[in-house]
Amino acid sequence: MELSNLMVIFGGTGDLTYRKLIPALYNLQHEGLLPENFVLVSVGRRDKTTEEYLVGIEEGIRGNARFPFEEEQWNRLKARIHYYRLPFEDDEAYPEFDNYLCTLEHKYATRGNRMFYLAVAPEYFSVIVDKLQKNGLVREVGAWSRVVIEKPFGKDFASAKELSRHITHVFGEENTYRIDHYLGKEMLQNIMVIRFANAFFEPVWNNKHIDHIQISSTETLGVGDRGGYYENSGALKDMVQNHLLQLLAVTTMEPPIRLDTESIRDEKVKVFKGLKELDEDLVVHNVVRGQYVRGIVDGQEVPGYREEDRVADGSDTETFVALKVEIQNFRWSGVPIYIRTGKRMHHKSIEVSVQFKEMADLLYMKGYQSTAPNMLVIRIQPYEGVSLQFNAKKPGTTNEMVPVKMDFCQNCEIGYSSPEAYERLLFDVMKGDSTLFTRWDEVEYSWRYVDRITQAWAKNKPAFPNYQAGSEGPREAMDLLARDGRKWWTSN
Amino acid sequence: MELSNLMVIFGGTGDLTYRKLIPALYNLQHEGLLPENFVLVSVGRRDKTTEEYLVGIEEGIRGNARFPFEEEQWNRLKARIHYYRLPFEDDEAYPEFDNYLCTLEHKYATRGNRMFYLAVAPEYFSVIVDKLQKNGLVREVGAWSRVVIEKPFGKDFASAKELSRHITHVFGEENTYRIDHYLGKEMLQNIMVIRFANAFFEPVWNNKHIDHIQISSTETLGVGDRGGYYENSGALKDMVQNHLLQLLAVTTMEPPIRLDTESIRDEKVKVFKGLKELDEDLVVHNVVRGQYVRGIVDGQEVPGYREEDRVADGSDTETFVALKVEIQNFRWSGVPIYIRTGKRMHHKSIEVSVQFKEMADLLYMKGYQSTAPNMLVIRIQPYEGVSLQFNAKKPGTTNEMVPVKMDFCQNCEIGYSSPEAYERLLFDVMKGDSTLFTRWDEVEYSWRYVDRITQAWAKNKPAFPNYQAGSEGPREAMDLLARDGRKWWTSN
Repeated sequence: MELSNLMVIFGGTGDLTYRKLIPALYNLQHEGLLPENFVLVSVGRRDKTTEEYLVGIEEGIRGNARFPFEEEQWNRLKARIHYYRLPFEDDEAYPEFDNYLCTLEHKYATRGNRMFYLAVAPEYFSVIVDKLQKNGLVREVGAWSRVVIEKPFGKDFASAKELSRHITHVFGEENTYRIDHYLGKEMLQNIMVIRFANAFFEPVWNNKHIDHIQISSTETLGVGDRGGYYENSGALKDMVQNHLLQLLAVTTMEPPIRLDTESIRDEKVKVFKGLKELDEDLVVHNVVRGQYVRGIVDGQEVPGYREEDRVADGSDTETFVALKVEIQNFRWSGVPIYIRTGKRMHHKSIEVSVQFKEMADLLYMKGYQSTAPNMLVIRIQPYEGVSLQFNAKKPGTTNEMVPVKMDFCQNCEIGYSSPEAYERLLFDVMKGDSTLFTRWDEVEYSWRYVDRITQAWAKNKPAFPNYQAGSEGPREAMDLLARDGRKWWTSN
Repeated sequence: MELSNLMVIFGGTGDLTYRKLIPALYNLQHEGLLPENFVLVSVGRRDKTTEEYLVGIEEGIRGNARFPFEEEQWNRLKARIHYYRLPFEDDEAYPEFDNYLCTLEHKYATRGNRMFYLAVAPEYFSVIVDKLQKNGLVREVGAWSRVVIEKPFGKDFASAKELSRHITHVFGEENTYRIDHYLGKEMLQNIMVIRFANAFFEPVWNNKHIDHIQISSTETLGVGDRGGYYENSGALKDMVQNHLLQLLAVTTMEPPIRLDTESIRDEKVKVFKGLKELDEDLVVHNVVRGQYVRGIVDGQEVPGYREEDRVADGSDTETFVALKVEIQNFRWSGVPIYIRTGKRMHHKSIEVSVQFKEMADLLYMKGYQSTAPNMLVIRIQPYEGVSLQFNAKKPGTTNEMVPVKMDFCQNCEIGYSSPEAYERLLFDVMKGDSTLFTRWDEVEYSWRYVDRITQAWAKNKPAFPNYQAGSEGPREAMDLLARDGRKWWTSN
């Protein structure tokens, strides 16, 4: 399959473009995966020449690409990058922009295929899509036009629905790529392979054998300079509604009838449909929110959330969420799934931990001292790998057990790096493979679930701040598991 | 529990005593496990003083103990070692020997407990036991007398039965410790813990999930100076009847009702009873014997078996056996178990490999290229550990799979050493724990099984030699698996 397309990034001077998108294109080119007939137009409001633009881009690649910076590769890539100034709201500017694109399409032989990447503030999503349509920039005959939408996809179910209606009206569902970069992570894709390509795991992947599951994404960073964005979002919308519910779905879905896009998405939707519906009582009992106060992270004192730039003095925005989820189906009924995410926590990791049930009768091995539970941990970041904790005999002339670990680490070798999520995802858009993007009904059901939490929260003012930067999060998050006789698992 | 006993080694100047038994005592002392009230009498035919004897023993410890040689430890141990010259067959010598033991018992306050270790040629087992009884050396009142018998325990069912009758008539079954040093190996004991203390393994440990099992014990050494012994034994009796069938039993037995000695032995016996009975046809089809010819091992040319010391020019003794075993019970019916053992093979290892069934429908993952089978490998020697091979996504922007390994290695850390089998086993005899020794009916059923093979072999002269030193064994051993669409697994 020969790929060719023009790519337009709205938000070409933004942080995402510098740190992720263009470094991902550089990586693709380094691997020989960037289409021969390809051209990128970075669109921004600022007035600058392509030459000026490329200075910053080069720096972005040097600092963020996973492959070493090579002049030759850079020369080949930069010859295909153009900067274009466009006031997004100005209808009149679009026809000229279209002419500009046509010229480039001709020059780079991209066959009329257009990929619009909206790396802009969410209020511009609909605006830009409308203008593209109105001015005839969206091609439908003899070529494809695809749109890639960054998060957040709406701020609740109603706004997401309105946004989706707007976009799919123009591009159609099949050309709408709602990005969730977690789905581009190597180990997240690996969960599907591990589950469905191994005779060993599938037989125990259910409530007969699994005690509970933990899905955890913690970071040590604070909001940094994203305080303005974060104040309107919070951890629930920024992380749970999209990334963590997607991770949940991939971990728990039934085996899809085929491993194609729609079959996989169908199964993910079924997980969301199976989530035990929350009411106010359940939110009070099963959902914990938190906000960090000044503390020590990695030996450095760091400010509290309310002291961060562009954050309100008395902000009630949550920077931490922990919740207990139940899936009401034959496979998972009775298996709690604990999800947590937070900023400024004690360590940085994304992982899924599957704890297996205790042996039927612990007394059986009583001569061998206590057993630890069997744990399968899928580590997504920063380590990529799988480890299995099991009980073994403690070496020695007595009968004692110790928990030991079998370990597989994909990126532990020095110098090894897996593809970046954006690398995989951009390549998939070019190929027209939307498997690792979210379909509207996935977004729909996850918003419906999350909206229940937002609504319940709105009725009570939280007692913020309630956890120290550099800690494991609020005490209530420990209690959430402790009252079920469990605790958060942290691998290292 | 305070332990105290006198230990007598018949065969005190033998290789086993120097290389294994006394180094094991040194290790036990180093760990603080040797009873405070302990004395060892090494019995041999040669005339030498204890001082002369200790010179060789010190050397044996320096070369073979797992703990570093320390003067202080050695001084404490050697003060408890005595050499005694005894012509085993001479009835008249025993009363004086008894007096000698009594004096030591008094001096070392061993409370009359006696442990007789028969590290002599098998023809002396009964002789010595008889003399001990006849001359009143076996105490039964107010103290214990235990006997430890080295292999071979008989040379077929009939002789084993006669030997057992002889020994248990004197010591009773409960004081008869038939040693099988494989049972003393750390990882072999670990198989029981792994199977029964982990919720993860038990659900898949059966014919619904397992395709087949391989039990392999290969060595690169030849017969060395044991040609005389080996000519009367061969790989089948030296390795299969005892070590490998024990390994099979521990791997496949049902969970014992309790983890006590008799419950475990009961389950092992049930495995032997469940072995599909062999007839001549089955032996021809399912059992392969081999003998090595001159070849290259580790870069060195080595002689063929028939060229070894004290081996007949036209010897038909097998140095290699491979066989396909079936256990006819609910758990294992339909799961072949392939056993092999050989000398002068390409590499040294003892391991149990469990291969899981292929996924129900391979086509399911066809987009991901080929899958490898899931394998659980329990490595007993020289590495001690467990590894699980499974399929994972090959890192990259395409969908491909690679087999990867989760690994746990117990003794990979430099400087770490597990207890020696003899260390554990001697300690168990002192404690009176016979779990890791074989009960008569285990020996009985394994001989009955193996006798069928010997009898069938006797009817045909083998085409020896049939494999090169340093190779994977005879071609027929590959064919044995190849005709079932399988192959021998070698981990590294």
